[in-house]
Amino acid sequence: MTERIRGILSPVVTPFRENGGVHLEKFVRQCRWLQSHGVGLAFLGTNSEANSLSPEERMEMIEALLDAGVNPAAMMPGTGACDLPTAVRLSRRAAQAGCAGVLTLPPFYYKGVSDEGLFRYFSELIENVGEAALRVYLYHIPPVAQVGIGLDLIERLLDRYPENIAGIKDSSGDWNNTLALLERFKDRGFSVFPGSEVFLLQGLRHGAAGCISATANVNPAAINRVFEEWETAQADDLQKGLDQIRGIFQRQPMIPALKTAIAHWSGDEEWSRVRPPLVELDTRQTTQLIEELEAAGFSMPGLR
Amino acid sequence: MTERIRGILSPVVTPFRENGGVHLEKFVRQCRWLQSHGVGLAFLGTNSEANSLSPEERMEMIEALLDAGVNPAAMMPGTGACDLPTAVRLSRRAAQAGCAGVLTLPPFYYKGVSDEGLFRYFSELIENVGEAALRVYLYHIPPVAQVGIGLDLIERLLDRYPENIAGIKDSSGDWNNTLALLERFKDRGFSVFPGSEVFLLQGLRHGAAGCISATANVNPAAINRVFEEWETAQADDLQKGLDQIRGIFQRQPMIPALKTAIAHWSGDEEWSRVRPPLVELDTRQTTQLIEELEAAGFSMPGLR
Repeated sequence: MTERIRGILSPVVTPFRENGGVHLEKFVRQCRWLQSHGVGLAFLGTNSEANSLSPEERMEMIEALLDAGVNPAAMMPGTGACDLPTAVRLSRRAAQAGCAGVLTLPPFYYKGVSDEGLFRYFSELIENVGEAALRVYLYHIPPVAQVGIGLDLIERLLDRYPENIAGIKDSSGDWNNTLALLERFKDRGFSVFPGSEVFLLQGLRHGAAGCISATANVNPAAINRVFEEWETAQADDLQKGLDQIRGIFQRQPMIPALKTAIAHWSGDEEWSRVRPPLVELDTRQTTQLIEELEAAGFSMPGLR
Repeated sequence: MTERIRGILSPVVTPFRENGGVHLEKFVRQCRWLQSHGVGLAFLGTNSEANSLSPEERMEMIEALLDAGVNPAAMMPGTGACDLPTAVRLSRRAAQAGCAGVLTLPPFYYKGVSDEGLFRYFSELIENVGEAALRVYLYHIPPVAQVGIGLDLIERLLDRYPENIAGIKDSSGDWNNTLALLERFKDRGFSVFPGSEVFLLQGLRHGAAGCISATANVNPAAINRVFEEWETAQADDLQKGLDQIRGIFQRQPMIPALKTAIAHWSGDEEWSRVRPPLVELDTRQTTQLIEELEAAGFSMPGLR
């Protein structure tokens, strides 16, 4: 069995060209910057606007990183889709390329679906991919997907696919759910990544594998430092620093705010573009965000 | 300007092969059966499990009907997708082929999105399709998509694209919303299709264009009769008959129930297959459904 990925992963935001297409070169460059600050690449996630990208565009982004020589052991692309053929195709490519894992949403169109239906979805995904190297990280994000992934479903999947079901990103925002996951599956080789760094230190103290967080796009080094130094005396102070920066971003719509910060500190206004149904920050929001970040001493070194 | 489609449309359920693929020949056959009972083809909708199909599979279903010589003037394929490139590609093909219209969901992954973001989504869809013949029917189904399409957004879209924005399928299940649509846009050439035949007679009396309903898959002739005879003395009695049959289906999970009925009356068990996350009816549910339908004198003539 390969070693499981640990640490901080960034759900890399996606740069768009003026014509609306994905700017692959800029995307690769951003991934390298993130890696230079110690974080891995959970690209094609919610913050990446992955569901606003066509299956072809998603595949091209996986290929672009591989072509650029980025180590697949640092990669956990989001390969979930409401339709199984697309999820299978993307997940198979990632597994064959040696990616650390894939992050898979449940099918999120129908609401109120049964655990039996979700079990069949993930079973068909794993069996149709047909790669022993596949490592599935379940993506639990009920505030957005509405369809969640409960503990009984996870246990059933782990019983059936102990090698393939590797962990979860818990973006419930509910620490009690994260704690329940950590406790119930602690002897099952199941990696729990809280979906926000506000639960990072708490999580690590209870056995979390790291975290996958929106703000790892903009504050990677500081978040990674908590992961590296969580057993030291200054860990609580470091965590407080993370919470302050997170708080500033959370006062704005998160995805446009991340892109606005990257645009500002890179000097590349094109970074602020988002795809519909998202909308860029307006001037007032932009000013507030940048002023609050600067007042907190925030910057993005090496981005320009 | 081409004449707008009116009448009853069926969101055609999708037949699957044993290997899980779409059974195109069976799909075309079912569409012909539906047309022989007077209803049009709103295929690739919610009841069609369209979001459980890959973009390629959806395109193949459009092409299969065109290749079979089905009149595109009877077709309103669902071409919505969270990602614009897919929605544009499917919608463009439908418009170029002369389809009566396309039924388009809003992007449904992100929740709590702004009207500005949804306006941009539909604007980019219409402008990127770039076909004067495109007729967009907005698909309002908040119980499933969660993201709805409000009246102010519709007005803004109609002001900007009076030719392309052709109407709405209102699957809110809220008669007051349907009535508000009918009243506010009655002079704008905007066709309102309630998403259930329980509102058919009421809707026609207030200017609705027909309806697009799950149960038009199984009870097409009777539903179409209400459309044809709504101004006659027996209209209320006919509507009561529709409501009784609808009620029987609504006591089960709708999509598997539709397929189970088709399997039963066609004698083709393969029809009962659904894709995850949906699950077939169990034996008890199947027995209850068929017994209740038979007791009500229901049948599906000409299907076998």
